[in-house]
Amino acid sequence: MIKAGIIGSTGYAGEELVRLLLGHKDAEIVWYGSRSYIDKKYADVYQNMFELVDAKCMDDNMQELAEKADVIFTATPQGLCASLVSEEILSKAKIIDLSADFRIKDVKTYEEWYKIEHKSPEFIPEAVYGLCEINREDVKKARLVANPGCYTTCSILTCYPLVKEGLINPDTIIVDAKSGTSGAGRGAKIDNLFCEVNENIKAYGVATHRHTPEIEEQLGYAAGREIRINFTPHLVPMNRGILVTAYASLVKDVSYEEVKAVYDAYYGKEKFVRVLEKDVCPQTKWVEGSNYVDVNFKIDPRTGRIIMMGALDNLVKGAAGQAVQNMNLMFGKKESEGLELVPMFP
Amino acid sequence: MIKAGIIGSTGYAGEELVRLLLGHKDAEIVWYGSRSYIDKKYADVYQNMFELVDAKCMDDNMQELAEKADVIFTATPQGLCASLVSEEILSKAKIIDLSADFRIKDVKTYEEWYKIEHKSPEFIPEAVYGLCEINREDVKKARLVANPGCYTTCSILTCYPLVKEGLINPDTIIVDAKSGTSGAGRGAKIDNLFCEVNENIKAYGVATHRHTPEIEEQLGYAAGREIRINFTPHLVPMNRGILVTAYASLVKDVSYEEVKAVYDAYYGKEKFVRVLEKDVCPQTKWVEGSNYVDVNFKIDPRTGRIIMMGALDNLVKGAAGQAVQNMNLMFGKKESEGLELVPMFP
Amino acid sequence: MIKAGIIGSTGYAGEELVRLLLGHKDAEIVWYGSRSYIDKKYADVYQNMFELVDAKCMDDNMQELAEKADVIFTATPQGLCASLVSEEILSKAKIIDLSADFRIKDVKTYEEWYKIEHKSPEFIPEAVYGLCEINREDVKKARLVANPGCYTTCSILTCYPLVKEGLINPDTIIVDAKSGTSGAGRGAKIDNLFCEVNENIKAYGVATHRHTPEIEEQLGYAAGREIRINFTPHLVPMNRGILVTAYASLVKDVSYEEVKAVYDAYYGKEKFVRVLEKDVCPQTKWVEGSNYVDVNFKIDPRTGRIIMMGALDNLVKGAAGQAVQNMNLMFGKKESEGLELVPMFP
Amino acid sequence: MIKAGIIGSTGYAGEELVRLLLGHKDAEIVWYGSRSYIDKKYADVYQNMFELVDAKCMDDNMQELAEKADVIFTATPQGLCASLVSEEILSKAKIIDLSADFRIKDVKTYEEWYKIEHKSPEFIPEAVYGLCEINREDVKKARLVANPGCYTTCSILTCYPLVKEGLINPDTIIVDAKSGTSGAGRGAKIDNLFCEVNENIKAYGVATHRHTPEIEEQLGYAAGREIRINFTPHLVPMNRGILVTAYASLVKDVSYEEVKAVYDAYYGKEKFVRVLEKDVCPQTKWVEGSNYVDVNFKIDPRTGRIIMMGALDNLVKGAAGQAVQNMNLMFGKKESEGLELVPMFP
Repeated sequence: MIKAGIIGSTGYAGEELVRLLLGHKDAEIVWYGSRSYIDKKYADVYQNMFELVDAKCMDDNMQELAEKADVIFTATPQGLCASLVSEEILSKAKIIDLSADFRIKDVKTYEEWYKIEHKSPEFIPEAVYGLCEINREDVKKARLVANPGCYTTCSILTCYPLVKEGLINPDTIIVDAKSGTSGAGRGAKIDNLFCEVNENIKAYGVATHRHTPEIEEQLGYAAGREIRINFTPHLVPMNRGILVTAYASLVKDVSYEEVKAVYDAYYGKEKFVRVLEKDVCPQTKWVEGSNYVDVNFKIDPRTGRIIMMGALDNLVKGAAGQAVQNMNLMFGKKESEGLELVPMFP
Repeated sequence: MIKAGIIGSTGYAGEELVRLLLGHKDAEIVWYGSRSYIDKKYADVYQNMFELVDAKCMDDNMQELAEKADVIFTATPQGLCASLVSEEILSKAKIIDLSADFRIKDVKTYEEWYKIEHKSPEFIPEAVYGLCEINREDVKKARLVANPGCYTTCSILTCYPLVKEGLINPDTIIVDAKSGTSGAGRGAKIDNLFCEVNENIKAYGVATHRHTPEIEEQLGYAAGREIRINFTPHLVPMNRGILVTAYASLVKDVSYEEVKAVYDAYYGKEKFVRVLEKDVCPQTKWVEGSNYVDVNFKIDPRTGRIIMMGALDNLVKGAAGQAVQNMNLMFGKKESEGLELVPMFP
Repeated sequence: MIKAGIIGSTGYAGEELVRLLLGHKDAEIVWYGSRSYIDKKYADVYQNMFELVDAKCMDDNMQELAEKADVIFTATPQGLCASLVSEEILSKAKIIDLSADFRIKDVKTYEEWYKIEHKSPEFIPEAVYGLCEINREDVKKARLVANPGCYTTCSILTCYPLVKEGLINPDTIIVDAKSGTSGAGRGAKIDNLFCEVNENIKAYGVATHRHTPEIEEQLGYAAGREIRINFTPHLVPMNRGILVTAYASLVKDVSYEEVKAVYDAYYGKEKFVRVLEKDVCPQTKWVEGSNYVDVNFKIDPRTGRIIMMGALDNLVKGAAGQAVQNMNLMFGKKESEGLELVPMFP
Repeated sequence: MIKAGIIGSTGYAGEELVRLLLGHKDAEIVWYGSRSYIDKKYADVYQNMFELVDAKCMDDNMQELAEKADVIFTATPQGLCASLVSEEILSKAKIIDLSADFRIKDVKTYEEWYKIEHKSPEFIPEAVYGLCEINREDVKKARLVANPGCYTTCSILTCYPLVKEGLINPDTIIVDAKSGTSGAGRGAKIDNLFCEVNENIKAYGVATHRHTPEIEEQLGYAAGREIRINFTPHLVPMNRGILVTAYASLVKDVSYEEVKAVYDAYYGKEKFVRVLEKDVCPQTKWVEGSNYVDVNFKIDPRTGRIIMMGALDNLVKGAAGQAVQNMNLMFGKKESEGLELVPMFP
């Protein structure tokens, strides 16, 4: 039984971790961390957990946690994990960090985009970028996993095969992403009130969103060189789901079958990436509550571009589900354990 | 392994049955019935099932189905199950009918409210009303179970203990119910279009809704006499969930603790009925995707009334979940098998 | 030209007042009061007003405001208006108070339900309860109008004719009300975040909501005696709209035609109250953005009760629209000036 | 008083025309056409019009309509207007066609994308593309106006100044558009049911949507040559609103101020196009219910691209509002008559 501790268990991603781990037969939660709700019953913060979770919320005592837990999930704001990690902690427990602290290899890039000083750059080199489908073998051996961002998981998986195979010019990639509101977290902000989000759609963080360098770094590895892309997130009036519509110029004439074969080569054996049938567009609802990413593409011969599309549940494959998938890999469990959730519709 | 066949598998309740049975370790689906989509791949009708269900939709051949299946779920419009059932069928397979055909013991009442002739009244006496928490022992022995309606499950469970214990005057019961739109089914009707439902709320079927006699019959059993209530359903702009707010006059002065004790006596050991803590109002979101019913109450000493509240997911405890719970009972399985779903939030 | 000042112009009701007054040919706004946004451009707080409102937000200087304005709207939390009003102010400007401060004649009742001390009870007697359809003549002569609450406007107008005519027993009235989320205001609270409200419905303030005594007082006037009712509000995942479903026991057998005649007698000439045709249930969407209240009823001979229904837009007839209607009456303008808005659908 | 007839008055765009014309002081509706609801009271089809519209729906008798009306709005499926127009009709009444029949000058392009034969290509040359801000003078003289599409209005107005001024390479334009569901019309289709759209987002018509050639034609005029773009529409769970996020490569280094000056040059005097302040992203909610288009842009020096954004209400500026604006121009009225609607928030 894997003993899991969660720092930041009362955010939406933290609570989703709780939901998933409660259904995981080889894991149990030993620490419900939450600075905001110390000593409050977890089920009073999330009433869906009534009679399912009896524990109270605890402070963020990393030392004590490392003694008690085999794995620590940090579902916290940027900067916190980096300020808590140490060789001692890592010698006792594995860490899966859901924040961005260890996702970007170049500390300067991190500090530039996140506007904070990195408190433990010495651990960046060993951190593994936990996009399981791409870095599976490294994840298995990792002590410290940087769990990818929600937008980035969707963006990278959607574009990866075509970048890797050199079918598109990576510098022409434009990622237009749409997200449900749970991605904005549970903070009490006017911008996230029901009446501000409902019946509304907007772009935000245009040309400045911090998932941009993360996508660029990972797709850059696939391309074999540095790349620059455009990434624009949008806020959609729904709770869950991210849809990515990505555009790129094809470097040569290709047929549907050729591109399909490339996607299948990369994802044919991947349980959690579903390459849809011809002309079926991914919809966020088709993956809600599950760990799936649905991807597909459409060639536009008129413009020489290809439109790549991907959909996932931002709290599952975009956060807590992928974290559990990483945990499974790190502890030698079946990769899909606790994640065999059928998407819920409607 | 229980072999299950579903007639009406492409309605919302049918599809939810598929979702639940795919996660049930002792059951497998052998027949995806759907008159509207014969020969079409099930996963083309419900794209969330892509790579999870490989089968095609089949016609409603009850004879053949009875040969192949141990249990037949009929998630069909009123009248269909009654027209298909026979002694021969029942000798081969158990039936769990999600329609209203066998819920009401008095065939005249059925025909009056449903405006159709009952095609097999001879099976009404043996049919068991499948509200597991109340008729558990009878369900275990049943060949034919009438799976309760979504509104009725919520209404009855919310009021049952107080009626049974005689704390309220049952003729003063007023049930004001609110439902998500999946309860209206997947038929292509203008009234259920997004733009008609969104940003809107309305009552419908006022004083004429067909779940009224079903509630009256069941609560009448609890009261030990015939009763008349008011029931008003409302359509709410959300996919899932039913909330019941029920009002009744108390027959005597009672304290919070006394009423709480009554609820606990009936539901304290029930896994799927959660009696909330004092002053916590049930919310549909807290049970979404799960088989739970959350209930609570508030005494109003000013008026001598009590307000009883209940919330469930209309597609789970209000339909497919309860059907699986009934199946588990009928086949001697653990009652909660396949139903240990943590509510999904947000 | 009526010069209008608004205290609390950056709440949702305040902003709706701005929307309506901008379309009013005999009024102009001279003061955009907002403690939270002093010196900020109003159009930066409400971007829909870009290029329409050039003014900046101002502090709540009641003295100065009374010099500049003919009418002061207070769209503020309870207690503020009562703390600001004075004979001097009222001698210079009329006040339309959108808070509850002057709605309830018995100051003890006010203080009990609102848990605050009333700072100027001496003005309660002269304050007119601004439900235009009922108190029109008094409103015309008033200096100080207590603009009714959103739930109360809907509840009272829905039940009033039958109470007044003695067709129902007023002590059996149960008002089950459903409101869009704008009624909760623009405060940054977790409970009102999109992800908490969306796909959810709940009751709140059960048996304790502060609109209860307001409804009781007004319907009590109609009944000619004190009454006690049940009132239960619910939060619905939509921006605007209140739907009231009210239940009461009929005191005698009545026909549809008799009851219809009563409603028509009271509302037949009222522009803003629409008595719908037989069996048509009010829907909030049908009045959205307008000052209409749609009402209707259904007799249930089985239980001897009548179900009365009403729908309005909580920000218009439930707040700002009614305030403008009151202003028109107080200043001798056409009652519907600035309010001839066609409901927006979808 | 302009006498207006509407063919297709029971679609969402037709109903919005009714809403707007009811508030227009120089127009009256003399014909509520609707093949689907002949002889039914209009207010029974759209209950919001109760007591506002007394008329019944009528068949599509173009001859009779032309006798009675000064202007005929055709808010109908593609092909219908083209099949009804004739020299005789046009000699008696002006036509504003809300369908695509006369938007595209090259009849082959029309037939290719719309898959129908054009029934009156002889009128294409005289038809004026009714994008008022661009073709104002021609509209004033027109007998037949092709009212632009919803997506196209938003896309063209968002990109026009930069294309016209040659600041961007028009062949690099990628328009990623998001629309509320009213754009899909009031037809009873499963895809548009509440439960299918709510909590969901998807792309559709990828690389094949019929608004593509319309955008290309109009922006091509601005560019002075034929262009090819990518256009991808998405369905968003909201009733109203279109948001366009458009990407293009800048042909040279430009500053924020330079680009802002270009937008201001084109739209500074346009009442209905609002160029937002720096870094403010358009939101559909800020224009809901009004005839405004909000536009803005962001330069991304990292990629040499510019992101242009625009938001409008698809039923107003994207359909009925623009039609009324065209009518005003054609009849010499004040251009904004009946359209001075303040956006409704929330």
